Amino acid sequence: MSLKPPFFSRRVLLAAFAVFTLLLPCIGARAQTDPLPSWGDGPAKKAIVDLVKTTTDKASPHFVPPEARIATFDQDGTTWVEHPIYTQVVYCLELVPTVVKTRPELKNVEPFKTVLSGDREAIAKLSMKDLEKIAAVTLFGMTVDEFRADVEKWISTAKHPRWDRLYTELTYQPMLEVMRYLRANDFKTYIVTGGGQDFVRTYSYRVYGIPPDQVVGTAGGVKYGYDKSGKPILTKEPRLLLNDNFAGKPEGIHLEIGARPVIAFGNSTGDREMLEYTKAGDGARLALLVLHDDAAREYAYGPAQGLPDTKVGTFTQALYDEAKKNAWSIISMKNDWRKIFAFER
Amino acid sequence: MSLKPPFFSRRVLLAAFAVFTLLLPCIGARAQTDPLPSWGDGPAKKAIVDLVKTTTDKASPHFVPPEARIATFDQDGTTWVEHPIYTQVVYCLELVPTVVKTRPELKNVEPFKTVLSGDREAIAKLSMKDLEKIAAVTLFGMTVDEFRADVEKWISTAKHPRWDRLYTELTYQPMLEVMRYLRANDFKTYIVTGGGQDFVRTYSYRVYGIPPDQVVGTAGGVKYGYDKSGKPILTKEPRLLLNDNFAGKPEGIHLEIGARPVIAFGNSTGDREMLEYTKAGDGARLALLVLHDDAAREYAYGPAQGLPDTKVGTFTQALYDEAKKNAWSIISMKNDWRKIFAFER
Repeated sequence: MSLKPPFFSRRVLLAAFAVFTLLLPCIGARAQTDPLPSWGDGPAKKAIVDLVKTTTDKASPHFVPPEARIATFDQDGTTWVEHPIYTQVVYCLELVPTVVKTRPELKNVEPFKTVLSGDREAIAKLSMKDLEKIAAVTLFGMTVDEFRADVEKWISTAKHPRWDRLYTELTYQPMLEVMRYLRANDFKTYIVTGGGQDFVRTYSYRVYGIPPDQVVGTAGGVKYGYDKSGKPILTKEPRLLLNDNFAGKPEGIHLEIGARPVIAFGNSTGDREMLEYTKAGDGARLALLVLHDDAAREYAYGPAQGLPDTKVGTFTQALYDEAKKNAWSIISMKNDWRKIFAFER
Repeated sequence: MSLKPPFFSRRVLLAAFAVFTLLLPCIGARAQTDPLPSWGDGPAKKAIVDLVKTTTDKASPHFVPPEARIATFDQDGTTWVEHPIYTQVVYCLELVPTVVKTRPELKNVEPFKTVLSGDREAIAKLSMKDLEKIAAVTLFGMTVDEFRADVEKWISTAKHPRWDRLYTELTYQPMLEVMRYLRANDFKTYIVTGGGQDFVRTYSYRVYGIPPDQVVGTAGGVKYGYDKSGKPILTKEPRLLLNDNFAGKPEGIHLEIGARPVIAFGNSTGDREMLEYTKAGDGARLALLVLHDDAAREYAYGPAQGLPDTKVGTFTQALYDEAKKNAWSIISMKNDWRKIFAFER
């Protein structure tokens, strides 16, 4: 091809360059690569992609307007590791020495005495009642700002013993990709967790890209008042407003979201009602359950593992059967996830 | 200026046209007209525009990242007419005949008998206890879907007696402009109302462009269960979770938003704590109170009117003094709003 100089005058080149630069984002969007690279090409990935296509295509009978595109994610066992013990429980246990410093009267009182002993076996045997006593002094009584500062400090340094990594690094890469993929398709993504709403909100935006108001969780009341200098404060009270587990999940979704999810992710019986409620809506809806079946890369527990259910993340055989019967999708960590954590090579 | 044909070759023209078309949105943004045309150039408008500028300019010491740009609006008396009686109370009263049809045992029982009589004077004298009895049968006991359908049906036809217009037409045009202006500057806008959360959510997106999850209001619990066909339902229970008035406003903001507002609008003592909490935050914060001082175009009540406070929208002299002392902005409907309703010429 011969180029004649007048054909490519400086003006034409500048104009063409400007057009090219301005069109770059469009070109990028067209040449888009797989939005879910950590997912294997199995039925779970297909179900997610199909749901997004059918609800965002204006010509589809299942089209959902952007303002009604709601996606909810359980957290523990669904978006990050919940084994061998919920991260928030670790937080409470590890905060006990600090609390005892300001409240020395607790030092020789159970269950605090056991926690301070550092005896892991004894700590693992603490009852639900003991844990509630520990929660009462570590989760309530302080201002919401103090609580946030305490959690931020802890979560930026505390590590999971198996991987020796921050808990926030133990989020599942495939789920982070799904969240981004859904948001790119104008879905609003929410965490709907049995964990503490205030706890998860401290890191949800940084870790999941989910702002505090899109975190629904177990929540206690707060009391408005004033500190000694007259500045308004909100104090965390041991008064349960929402137990965001089981039936509490759709109830919490109604309270804080006010619309039914189009797609919902869970991993245990605590998510059953949320998935059931999601699927009972009109049009196309998708419910998914994460199955922990990869002891090598993460953990294996629940049905079809030949292993008993563990205390946490109870994915029972009954739940598995219900999922199969109602066409909920099962996400096999072993088969559906090429990569589990971002730090994997 | 002489135009030489080769200078404007077809290629140059096409390229220039393409560039021009692609740049149109930018040009439009620069030539942008006043985003608040219904506002007079007074101190209230200036305070709003200054707040937006200082919190969205990256070079400003008061810059707020987009995810923390929270704007909250009270509803009754702040974004729509609350006189002579709250719209939701009108809804409850007007629903009584329908309720009595299915529950005839209420027909001769007070306060339902009075409501059915249609005697306006007697109805106006109903006590708070009477109104609670009416609320109990009109706001609770049905599923959330049934309630939504009832409200949608009513609000699409019921009219305000003074203007003979739909209640949703009696929203304040200047406030709708502020909401759009804030959203255009990446603020997230919320209704924080003493009214029923479920009630306001039925029309909030259509009327204010605010989706259900950004409506915080007085809220009762719901109970998850199943209808006769086994379909999951959520039933509204007469169990108060959040009284979103006074101290309940910052408490509700914490529960459902989880972050402190940067800017908050109210009009009565019920908004006092929300404004106080907003202003107590770091950096630039703005609190504003709507003063109803325009009897000709809307109503005049509250301080500086020489009129006694009315039952609703109690803007007391004490609140006015507190606002002045703490540099909260007063929005005078008479002086600050060129236009109150969209239907005005």
